[in-house]
Amino acid sequence: MSMLSVNGNRLYRSLAALGEIGAYDAGDGVTGVSRLALTAADGEGRRHVVAKMRQAGLVVTVDRIGNVYGRRPGKDDSLAPVMLGSHIDSVATAGRYDGCLGVLGGLEVVATLNDAKRETLRPIVVAFFTEEEGARFGTDMLGSAVATGRIPLEQAYGLRDRAGKSVKDELDAIGFCGDEDERLPPPHAYLECHIEQGPMLRAANLDIGVVTGVQAICWHELVIVGKSAHAGTTPMSLRADPGVAAARINIAIREMTSSGQYGEDLRATMGVISPHPGLVNVVPGRVVASVDIRNPDDAILARAEADVVLLYDRVAKAEKVTITHRRTARTHRVRFDEHVQARVIAAARARGLSHEPIVSGAGHDAQEMAPHCPSGMVFVPGENEGISHNPREHSTEAQCTNGVNVLLDVTLAFADESGLR
Amino acid sequence: MSMLSVNGNRLYRSLAALGEIGAYDAGDGVTGVSRLALTAADGEGRRHVVAKMRQAGLVVTVDRIGNVYGRRPGKDDSLAPVMLGSHIDSVATAGRYDGCLGVLGGLEVVATLNDAKRETLRPIVVAFFTEEEGARFGTDMLGSAVATGRIPLEQAYGLRDRAGKSVKDELDAIGFCGDEDERLPPPHAYLECHIEQGPMLRAANLDIGVVTGVQAICWHELVIVGKSAHAGTTPMSLRADPGVAAARINIAIREMTSSGQYGEDLRATMGVISPHPGLVNVVPGRVVASVDIRNPDDAILARAEADVVLLYDRVAKAEKVTITHRRTARTHRVRFDEHVQARVIAAARARGLSHEPIVSGAGHDAQEMAPHCPSGMVFVPGENEGISHNPREHSTEAQCTNGVNVLLDVTLAFADESGLR
Repeated sequence: MSMLSVNGNRLYRSLAALGEIGAYDAGDGVTGVSRLALTAADGEGRRHVVAKMRQAGLVVTVDRIGNVYGRRPGKDDSLAPVMLGSHIDSVATAGRYDGCLGVLGGLEVVATLNDAKRETLRPIVVAFFTEEEGARFGTDMLGSAVATGRIPLEQAYGLRDRAGKSVKDELDAIGFCGDEDERLPPPHAYLECHIEQGPMLRAANLDIGVVTGVQAICWHELVIVGKSAHAGTTPMSLRADPGVAAARINIAIREMTSSGQYGEDLRATMGVISPHPGLVNVVPGRVVASVDIRNPDDAILARAEADVVLLYDRVAKAEKVTITHRRTARTHRVRFDEHVQARVIAAARARGLSHEPIVSGAGHDAQEMAPHCPSGMVFVPGENEGISHNPREHSTEAQCTNGVNVLLDVTLAFADESGLR
Repeated sequence: MSMLSVNGNRLYRSLAALGEIGAYDAGDGVTGVSRLALTAADGEGRRHVVAKMRQAGLVVTVDRIGNVYGRRPGKDDSLAPVMLGSHIDSVATAGRYDGCLGVLGGLEVVATLNDAKRETLRPIVVAFFTEEEGARFGTDMLGSAVATGRIPLEQAYGLRDRAGKSVKDELDAIGFCGDEDERLPPPHAYLECHIEQGPMLRAANLDIGVVTGVQAICWHELVIVGKSAHAGTTPMSLRADPGVAAARINIAIREMTSSGQYGEDLRATMGVISPHPGLVNVVPGRVVASVDIRNPDDAILARAEADVVLLYDRVAKAEKVTITHRRTARTHRVRFDEHVQARVIAAARARGLSHEPIVSGAGHDAQEMAPHCPSGMVFVPGENEGISHNPREHSTEAQCTNGVNVLLDVTLAFADESGLR
């Protein structure tokens, strides 16, 4: 078989190199990555990847929301390109694979084509998008949502982090507020290789997840206001403790997931719990908390969201506090293009890689691209029960290489098509 | 009646003046005070009070833990002094009365004696103690505990705040590491006027609380370690969420207070809840939390403490997390001197002030002095249900004046005694 294959070792070394940027010692001999969007570390990571793009001969452009595109010309350069992308920003306590595999995997596809002097009919663009995680400015898939028109540029510019710094100012600060129009002309196809970030593929001993879509996601920010008071003197009957209210919500959403009323697949998490003033001998007066609920079924998620809002009211009454909630994210179930899925299956089959369909539990840039052009994703398994958003996130060289080989095959299938399908 | 009385307006203005230092806008037209121990604001507050002491003719000394003593000579200056004291450090979200009333009330007693050219047989010392709140370095009544020998000086010096700064360095930084021996020779009596910090006196329309003692207090710092993971992809069954564990503990300790198993007077509070990394889409890996439990009965508190430790174990098993706890404070029920109480009652009666015995819910420097010399406290009511550790903390001029007049009377009764009782 004269099938082209990527250089897995080169790919894996490039993941390690990018993982050095924003690295920190997470204890137990584990190295974490902290590269929150538009921080100095993200700026350094961006310059590192841009340099790699240029080394690979790509023409680099930066748009007004800081999305970066590296273009390899096609034989017919007037045709819409095939885009391979993801993100390189991270949560504060990350590993080195989330997002980076899709970007560096795209660059490895290009390097493999370059090495083989393999031209394609269509251009190939490797992209990374701004603030996919939403971990700094509160809105995930920010860059791809702006590029595809769901979020207006001015709205994105005005988002602020907890310290009050705006997206616009921070783009300027790291020198990544480009002058390219932020609205992206639809590519011929969008392909994203990503770690699963869950345990399923590894547990089932599968090489490849053929991603059928992304579950629906809902985020609420809660502000719970009670009455700050002295912990030693205030009788329990006079208390209005927003920390207890947050605790009741945290436990109630956990119980919703096992109640059977929302099927088997409801996920619910309170990741933020921030009491003010946060002192041992003071009943907090105010708690900021977050609720993240997800489900592969839009109708179930809508029902769960309505129920958590009723829950807030019940808890507010019972605990004599006020609870206001603000939706900070709400995405619907996304279904990926069937033709892309078919080509992922064909590629996996041709390479003898085991594969199954899978629904993504996490949000991805591909879901923003899905209404814009034929889009799809290739998942690879992760060790340690697929843990992610954690320094122990780990996919092996073989796991990553399999995914990027499939990415290569599907890229070629789309990049050599002349017209519209 | 030729009874000497304090100048209530002067007292109240001095409370307002000290309340300007560390003041902040708490919203709704309310001004808060933030003067955490050994911060720059505390340093400014200390210099302000020291200047007032010198204006009143007191000889000021500072000991090695930063406690400040202002001495008015007695006719027989070799006799042990009567000490009037409290603290001027505050929690991060405080009002202007907690502690300050005892210190500025002591200075008002001295000013009243000065105005009347009234000498006393014994010296009178007005004192303020370092880090009474424990809000910065985690150990409350720190200065008075060092002065009376419960906590060794070196141990106190080594305590650090959340930013890693030590008591010793911060004493040096504000210029209040004195050279006076920190071990205090026993005064003839120790008297402390303080706001109740609770609703009882105000609700019963009483002028004066005759404090019989202080309830027993127990603080735990909990470190709960689970498994940080992606909020969207990690199945609920694989989670080990320390935020949920903290929530279960918070609710369980609340339920203990109303269970009837610990009488009516158990107080329980989780004031600190700090998840790491604290992001909407990440299951926290680690939560630091606090538990504060109090009871007027030592045996009941001991039983409640044993039960919360068992609770930690149960929750750790159920939530698949580890929970380690560290006792950061443990004080036993303190009973104040009966003779001091009798003199407070006599003074209140002579002035026609309504009064009742009361147990203090909060810890006070007087409890550290109680094993050292005859000690007692005078409580005054607070408005707004006696709220404290809150900018809305408020006692009226009349309420404060009544308390300090009683302080004056009891001071004179002790200060004119020749020998030991």
